[in-house]
Amino acid sequence: MSVTAPKGFRASGVACGIKAGGALDLALVFSDRPCAAAGVFTTNWVKAAPVRYDQTLLARRQRGFRAVVINSGNANACTGPRGLSDVYALVETAGFLLGVPPEAILVMSTGVIGVPLPMDRLRAGLLAAVAALSEGGGEAAARAIMTTDTRPKMAFRQLNLNGVPVTLGAMAKGAGMIHPHMATMLALITTDIAADPDRLDRLLRETVEESFHRITVDGDQSTNDTVLLLANGASGLALDARTEPAFREALTGLCVELAQAIVRDGEGATKFVEIRVQGARTRAEARRIARHIAASPLVKTAFYGADPNWGRILAAAGAAGVSLDPDLLSLWIRRGDGHPLLLFDRGAPVPYLENEARAVFAAPAFQVILDLRLGEAEDWVWTCDLSHDYVTINGRYRT
Amino acid sequence: MSVTAPKGFRASGVACGIKAGGALDLALVFSDRPCAAAGVFTTNWVKAAPVRYDQTLLARRQRGFRAVVINSGNANACTGPRGLSDVYALVETAGFLLGVPPEAILVMSTGVIGVPLPMDRLRAGLLAAVAALSEGGGEAAARAIMTTDTRPKMAFRQLNLNGVPVTLGAMAKGAGMIHPHMATMLALITTDIAADPDRLDRLLRETVEESFHRITVDGDQSTNDTVLLLANGASGLALDARTEPAFREALTGLCVELAQAIVRDGEGATKFVEIRVQGARTRAEARRIARHIAASPLVKTAFYGADPNWGRILAAAGAAGVSLDPDLLSLWIRRGDGHPLLLFDRGAPVPYLENEARAVFAAPAFQVILDLRLGEAEDWVWTCDLSHDYVTINGRYRT
Repeated sequence: MSVTAPKGFRASGVACGIKAGGALDLALVFSDRPCAAAGVFTTNWVKAAPVRYDQTLLARRQRGFRAVVINSGNANACTGPRGLSDVYALVETAGFLLGVPPEAILVMSTGVIGVPLPMDRLRAGLLAAVAALSEGGGEAAARAIMTTDTRPKMAFRQLNLNGVPVTLGAMAKGAGMIHPHMATMLALITTDIAADPDRLDRLLRETVEESFHRITVDGDQSTNDTVLLLANGASGLALDARTEPAFREALTGLCVELAQAIVRDGEGATKFVEIRVQGARTRAEARRIARHIAASPLVKTAFYGADPNWGRILAAAGAAGVSLDPDLLSLWIRRGDGHPLLLFDRGAPVPYLENEARAVFAAPAFQVILDLRLGEAEDWVWTCDLSHDYVTINGRYRT
Repeated sequence: MSVTAPKGFRASGVACGIKAGGALDLALVFSDRPCAAAGVFTTNWVKAAPVRYDQTLLARRQRGFRAVVINSGNANACTGPRGLSDVYALVETAGFLLGVPPEAILVMSTGVIGVPLPMDRLRAGLLAAVAALSEGGGEAAARAIMTTDTRPKMAFRQLNLNGVPVTLGAMAKGAGMIHPHMATMLALITTDIAADPDRLDRLLRETVEESFHRITVDGDQSTNDTVLLLANGASGLALDARTEPAFREALTGLCVELAQAIVRDGEGATKFVEIRVQGARTRAEARRIARHIAASPLVKTAFYGADPNWGRILAAAGAAGVSLDPDLLSLWIRRGDGHPLLLFDRGAPVPYLENEARAVFAAPAFQVILDLRLGEAEDWVWTCDLSHDYVTINGRYRT
């Protein structure tokens, strides 16, 4: 189940020839009725044309959104004035084929940067995508937005709000190392709740902070990163102060599931690691240190090599640009539900069994816990290791 | 020629058993007469014991320095209170053996983090190192400070100041990816000029900014990074307002040579790349963007794969946290003394021959030039690619 899980949504995924070998590369998601929409976009100063387009459109806070067109294989970024005029042509065509105004359509792109969109192929592809729209098309759409992803990423939630069933569906793509990353992350979430655009916008921003932004370095995002949320109201229930808490919980769970799926499918990733920093003065400082540890190539290669080389973790923490007292630091590692293994306590190494430490680092998923003992705040991020395959995938020539 | 090139310096490199297999791992550099000294140290909040020790000692601005003890294989970082007491024991022993006060001795360490120094081996090693001191010992010392370096890094300069020959000698180690890096960079520079500690300190800071800091992310340094400069005055000439310009030029050239040698010997590196950002509002902003590009794993793997995937360079530039206008950006690449090849001009891709672009990226050394068109400032950094070997070297288990 994916974006077509909520009532009133149809989708399709087709091959229009952007990618070689007939792989799916064009997704279309359509709502039978007008939607409120919200978006969270990359903070990169170099933004792709579809990002610029969607941001402008969503700033108007209109409610009449009907469709999202997403292509993979080409990011339509760094394509100059032509990039934006191609987006206009794309929504013009899609609107004509769907019988809706062009401004009811949002656009996402992911793939190679700096190459103009092959518009003839996309126009023909749109025709096929419109014809293929169906309530069962969610998985094809999720496959059509993949780039180096090894599997489609879908999730859904159903909840009962005041006796009314409300559904959320979602798909996402993203398989760059993510952290530090410039590989595009796209996500589209659909729901049949009715919502005011302002409330939807605030809720999405808060939810992304708890989910996708835990795998993303602020200010270090791709040209195309986009999370969109469409709410078409087909359930008959509205998002308001009473229904928001339960809806928010479902939305957050959905986004965390997708965010973790992206890390688990990271390019060449063999391990899923949670970096938790506690005892910080502020949550922002805790996250900054956690991100810096998670971004360190030396730490990530140690994860890959299953080498409990914890000195690299402390060195990365000290280099995050956040003042700390090395004599107060303690560090634990922990596998699944196991007991935390203390490696470093208040500034000094402690005796531990090397085999136990290696067993944690050899696990497919584990946790690193750093206590700063400076305050009460904590935060965490999710990351993966840096492997030979990552270099192979990204060192490969584009064609 | 290395640290023993200037008059009055002797050195040695011995194997004391920190490293396996009898590799050289203890270097000693000794001056026949007292030296003025200056140091530039890591900005990491987690500082190794020898860094804390040297910083305290140098802050006194004394003139009586006589020797530097450097071990490789063990960083003496994150070793708790014992780390610092081991440094005291080390200078105590070295001072006794050399017949100089302990406070005349500076210390550097590099290697694995979190493991106490094997003091018995070091004491025995110091005895051998003192016995082996010689004017020809510069190369052995340079070899003894290597970790994952594939070759020793040495440089020297001779200049004639007011008819007096003055010599500078130096050795360095460092072969982490450097950028972003947490692999230790150590450098020791000796000279026979006489100098006031304050002047020496200022000159070294300015010079490091033009050389070693071009391969290092500020605030992202190892626990042990150290550059030391010892001036023993044996030439009979003093560093003053008149002699400083020529001496500074020689010192800068020496440091740039070593800094570039470190990048060229980067772990697994196959390419040397200069990232130059021009048209910036300030030099600091230019360097921040250049560093962000140089630190991007996606850019570095593209260098490795000889893939002129210039979109990744623009995406990294936009993610540096510096405001810029993507519609003003231009990008060139350039091989050696060749003509710059324009890839992207004022916000739009330009037609170029793919073969020509690939030829540049396939070269062992090339330049990336990004023009922001926001001002007159420029700066540049040196970096290397990210290869399979980098992952192999750093994913390997410590033992």
